[in-house]
Amino acid sequence: MDRRSFIKKAGLAGAAASTLAAPAIAQENQTWRMVTTWPKNFPGLGVGAQRLADRITAASGGRLTIQVYAAGELVPPLQSLDAVIDGSAEMSHSAAYYWQNKSAGLSFFTGVPYGMTSRELTAWVRHMGGQEIWDEIYDQFGVQGFLSGDTGTQAGGWFRNELTGVDSIQGLRFRTPGLGGQVWEKLGASVTNMAAGEIFQALQSGTLDAAEFVGPYNDLALGFYQVAKNYYFPSFVEPGLATELVVSKSKYQELPSDLQAIIRDCAQAEYDNVAADFAANDPRALQTLVDEHGVNVLSFPDEILEAGANAAKEIMQGLLDSDDALTKKTAESFVASLNIVRQKTEGTDSPFIQAREKYFHI
Amino acid sequence: MDRRSFIKKAGLAGAAASTLAAPAIAQENQTWRMVTTWPKNFPGLGVGAQRLADRITAASGGRLTIQVYAAGELVPPLQSLDAVIDGSAEMSHSAAYYWQNKSAGLSFFTGVPYGMTSRELTAWVRHMGGQEIWDEIYDQFGVQGFLSGDTGTQAGGWFRNELTGVDSIQGLRFRTPGLGGQVWEKLGASVTNMAAGEIFQALQSGTLDAAEFVGPYNDLALGFYQVAKNYYFPSFVEPGLATELVVSKSKYQELPSDLQAIIRDCAQAEYDNVAADFAANDPRALQTLVDEHGVNVLSFPDEILEAGANAAKEIMQGLLDSDDALTKKTAESFVASLNIVRQKTEGTDSPFIQAREKYFHI
Repeated sequence: MDRRSFIKKAGLAGAAASTLAAPAIAQENQTWRMVTTWPKNFPGLGVGAQRLADRITAASGGRLTIQVYAAGELVPPLQSLDAVIDGSAEMSHSAAYYWQNKSAGLSFFTGVPYGMTSRELTAWVRHMGGQEIWDEIYDQFGVQGFLSGDTGTQAGGWFRNELTGVDSIQGLRFRTPGLGGQVWEKLGASVTNMAAGEIFQALQSGTLDAAEFVGPYNDLALGFYQVAKNYYFPSFVEPGLATELVVSKSKYQELPSDLQAIIRDCAQAEYDNVAADFAANDPRALQTLVDEHGVNVLSFPDEILEAGANAAKEIMQGLLDSDDALTKKTAESFVASLNIVRQKTEGTDSPFIQAREKYFHI
Repeated sequence: MDRRSFIKKAGLAGAAASTLAAPAIAQENQTWRMVTTWPKNFPGLGVGAQRLADRITAASGGRLTIQVYAAGELVPPLQSLDAVIDGSAEMSHSAAYYWQNKSAGLSFFTGVPYGMTSRELTAWVRHMGGQEIWDEIYDQFGVQGFLSGDTGTQAGGWFRNELTGVDSIQGLRFRTPGLGGQVWEKLGASVTNMAAGEIFQALQSGTLDAAEFVGPYNDLALGFYQVAKNYYFPSFVEPGLATELVVSKSKYQELPSDLQAIIRDCAQAEYDNVAADFAANDPRALQTLVDEHGVNVLSFPDEILEAGANAAKEIMQGLLDSDDALTKKTAESFVASLNIVRQKTEGTDSPFIQAREKYFHI
């Protein structure tokens, strides 16, 4: 317990507390460890984790300094949540869907096939009960989650050969993880997952026919264009990918309320900042891929988009029918909210964007 | 100058400073006045101003308490920037395009006809040089601007009669302000501006044939549906409307760096929060308008969208050709950035949204 809440609980607030000598109530500076699942300086996400750490350090005037550990520096990338649970770190910057083996409902707080865009996700999490359900899930593990960034709609993937329809997917050896991978499996692909650093080699050697990672901003750096020239859009399985900041709940609650507010506000500010970063730098990177590396930018055939939607519906139905009460509750809240928010996206945003594309060039 | 920066500049940092008695270096609590152009509890925007004030107060642990004044409480709504300039308030929560008479370039930091969506605007402001140009404009007035909220794409307006094409607009008495009003004038409307509280009466009495305000979330409360049943989408003249937090630059710079960071981070967090609020509550309000008030939701005819784009291009060209160097610079930066960021919006986001609309219903 920190001294401030001790004083409050001990009934010493107000005049009595203020007569204590100031140095005695001054809070000690602390340093917290933030583990991440991202390589150091990973565009958008790793950079965003560092910026979030720096924001908290600056806004707290150094009372809470955040030290960032890139993937593997303190714990392996996919143990970052466990590190917070077991106390070897106070914070983790990652993506909730990596922990779907702990609770299938966690996928919804990152992004699901044919699900919400980044803006829709914030509507659900911040104004339609999403955060409260997320809190309920994470309470089981003694941690607190906050949205901390978003890639926006991702690229569909790099394919050695052009796709003419669902037939082109049969047996295709495709790297794509999570629920998106399940969608592609239903479409007939032979899906595999592998770490970012292994993809290039697998494409080059022919172990893979295709691979999906994030989008132009990240993919450019990994050099996939050297071995697969066909870059398909959009990713209908990752219409957004939100990252999370996870904090040990007991340590969070021991903080004075101003530092709690600073963590919460900085995570939300950085959510906006990362999403803006991808909106600015994905198209710049795509231009480089086209102009300097001769990449073919292609759209998925309608047949694939439609079959993908049907597969995504089956997966969503499975989550709605889950035996796990919290997963079922998460899926129901997500679908009900999606069916509200999509009206503005599809009925207002999309007609504007289409009209601008058609009529406004300057 | 605050004591912290005084100590730093006087070379007393580090060990020497830490030997000073703590009460002597404790910073005094301050209360700042935030004037706004919004009525109290105005959905989305007024509520967002209050939430931003509360965030800063909480994150600063009460060292900086923000007191909000609704439109007219301290100064008239359209004098909120002047109040910060003349020192009668420390902060203003408003929209930059209200001050286009001070600099035409300011419109770009709110939204312009056929311009950027909310996400695109953050890409430009935060990652493509927009903030730096905004700072250059506001430096002339001794203030500092931050984005503080966004309505997202607005509604096109309430029309007593249905629109069949550009012919239907000739002589139409339409309430719509700013550059959007100039677009509608070019289309043949007789454009007028009036305060929110006067619109209903003018529509009812027949002084107006049509009116545009914000979107369903705000418009529902004003009761326009009682006198004009045709609700057109989308607003091609306000594809987003960003609000601003403006702070007296000298007072901002006198703050210790942690309070400066808190203001900056809270404004950015609240930008995200307001945008999410509209994404959640515009479609809910529209459902109420349709289900309970029999409103017709309609799309503008293509002919109007196209003519609107041509008018918007003329206006944009005028800004690009401006004699005012800063306005010209702002317009050039905005157009160059729009032509980059639109690639992702139109090439990735939009195809996903269209595919979901067509194929994914659950």
